[in-house]
Amino acid sequence: MTNREDRLIDRIRKKIPSAAGGILRAGIGDDAAVLRAPASSEWLVTVDPFIEDVHFLADAYPPDAVGWKALVRATSDIAAMGAMPQLFLLSLAIPAKRTGRWLDAMLAGMARAAERLGLRLAGGDTAQSSRKNPKVSISVTVFGTVQRGRALLRSGARPGDAIFVTGRLGAAQLGLELILRGLHRERRWKKQLAAQFYPQIFPGLAAWLAEHRLATAMMDISDGLSTDLDRLCRASGVGARIHAATFLSANVPRELARLRLDPLKLALHGGEDYGLLFTVPKRLASRIPRAPGDVPLTRIGKIVPGRGVRLVAVGGSSSLLVARGWDHFSKR
Amino acid sequence: MTNREDRLIDRIRKKIPSAAGGILRAGIGDDAAVLRAPASSEWLVTVDPFIEDVHFLADAYPPDAVGWKALVRATSDIAAMGAMPQLFLLSLAIPAKRTGRWLDAMLAGMARAAERLGLRLAGGDTAQSSRKNPKVSISVTVFGTVQRGRALLRSGARPGDAIFVTGRLGAAQLGLELILRGLHRERRWKKQLAAQFYPQIFPGLAAWLAEHRLATAMMDISDGLSTDLDRLCRASGVGARIHAATFLSANVPRELARLRLDPLKLALHGGEDYGLLFTVPKRLASRIPRAPGDVPLTRIGKIVPGRGVRLVAVGGSSSLLVARGWDHFSKR
Repeated sequence: MTNREDRLIDRIRKKIPSAAGGILRAGIGDDAAVLRAPASSEWLVTVDPFIEDVHFLADAYPPDAVGWKALVRATSDIAAMGAMPQLFLLSLAIPAKRTGRWLDAMLAGMARAAERLGLRLAGGDTAQSSRKNPKVSISVTVFGTVQRGRALLRSGARPGDAIFVTGRLGAAQLGLELILRGLHRERRWKKQLAAQFYPQIFPGLAAWLAEHRLATAMMDISDGLSTDLDRLCRASGVGARIHAATFLSANVPRELARLRLDPLKLALHGGEDYGLLFTVPKRLASRIPRAPGDVPLTRIGKIVPGRGVRLVAVGGSSSLLVARGWDHFSKR
Repeated sequence: MTNREDRLIDRIRKKIPSAAGGILRAGIGDDAAVLRAPASSEWLVTVDPFIEDVHFLADAYPPDAVGWKALVRATSDIAAMGAMPQLFLLSLAIPAKRTGRWLDAMLAGMARAAERLGLRLAGGDTAQSSRKNPKVSISVTVFGTVQRGRALLRSGARPGDAIFVTGRLGAAQLGLELILRGLHRERRWKKQLAAQFYPQIFPGLAAWLAEHRLATAMMDISDGLSTDLDRLCRASGVGARIHAATFLSANVPRELARLRLDPLKLALHGGEDYGLLFTVPKRLASRIPRAPGDVPLTRIGKIVPGRGVRLVAVGGSSSLLVARGWDHFSKR
């Protein structure tokens, strides 16, 4: 005779790994989760919302992609500081019509991401969206651990450091452009949509960089390279010089030429790739290609004294790069 | 030349205490916050959403009450385990029209709650709600610390324990009933609305109970006594017997008699009071009235062997109490 909310919580905990034990002393079932970490480590915590018609379009998004991406994008912030993802809290408001198969598929996507990233569910909250606000609203809080003092901040970049990024820049934005034009309904663009629906992150690489003290600064590229590199430079009090010719950018198929999507612009300003952006002292840069795992890594330029990011075009001319990545509060 | 989102984050951190230091090694400005607690303590963490037209009606709620209540209701879960509130993360999506004065007032209410509860803002995320989903969506993650092994769970109640609650039961529900009838527009009901708009919680009392090992189980009453006491009993594998005559219930003014609001029903099933519900071994129960602070405390009954909660009516007859508190997923 438990109530419906308690039964929904039971359904969630059956689908997503959530057993207490180890650093999770008490999890789902009490008012709060109880965490205990070794004295030699620090906690890293972050929160990320994932809201229908704000962060994703429910009509375009497969439900399992909603669950996958909600968890991956939040975890990306933890990984980007060199920490190992450990636990998460899930806050979920859903309309009644989505509590059946849609929720099952959403949770399946989230469970897959949790297993991939080594995350356990430690607690959360559920609510039913009302008729006046019948939207899915998800908020994910992620906890990671890192050895004391090893967390990689944005503020450590120094002139001379090499700048690296992971993955294809702008691939997620290409997927978004297809969705905005209704092309996600065509099966043949499945591959081009994957980076938007199911972003991949690399906590193992990030933790390796932190553990071996190879990186001086690190963050994830969530709002686009031009905006996020600008943030890293400001936090470090430095400038940067990057080379367009080095970019591994999104493949825009020839059949989509009519859309006039410029791979360079996608690479510079496209958001949601969740790749790593990090800086490495010049003398250590040669060790980076020997990183574990199979992560596509590109050296795109270097940190310089002063301020601002300069982009060297393929032709060799250079100009100041204006931050034109994703800004939630820009006039749209 | 920072972008608008970064400027909004600056506005928030100027209004709400957020300085790094002590257990907050790095806060706003990096991908994640870095936390370090003494080896003798454990972290308690919880998340609570507060969404327009799901958890609050924006037309009825003063904006400072939105900020106050969003933070207080999340912190209640931490306090209810006997921990000292320390830090919080704020995830915020707001429509453009609310980024001006409304946001300032909301943040002022949140800042007041943060100061009252001793909380610092450690990080978060902001987004602009879209035209397709123009609602305010808040999610608050709260962190507290407690000495190792002292967190008070729901599962520790034993037969013979005395049952205590704090505050007036059903006072917040009375406020909600007034709002649902449009009576919040009449200034004369300001006092009756206070418990709904600006709930008070007592982390000091809760920490005192944990520190002195006086309580065997504790939780907050967020969904109503009948539902939450049922949860505590289930978690502990016990039953309970409570006496209606002992309840400190909401004062329903005589002018509202026409609404036929039954103070007993409000007390049993009304949600959102965020009072403490805790159990104390019989031999220690006499120490409870000597608790520090000025918290209204009531002993309402005792834990018994078996299952279920029995309510002894004022007349002396007893009956099984059905959990009829707030259930987000009940058919409405």
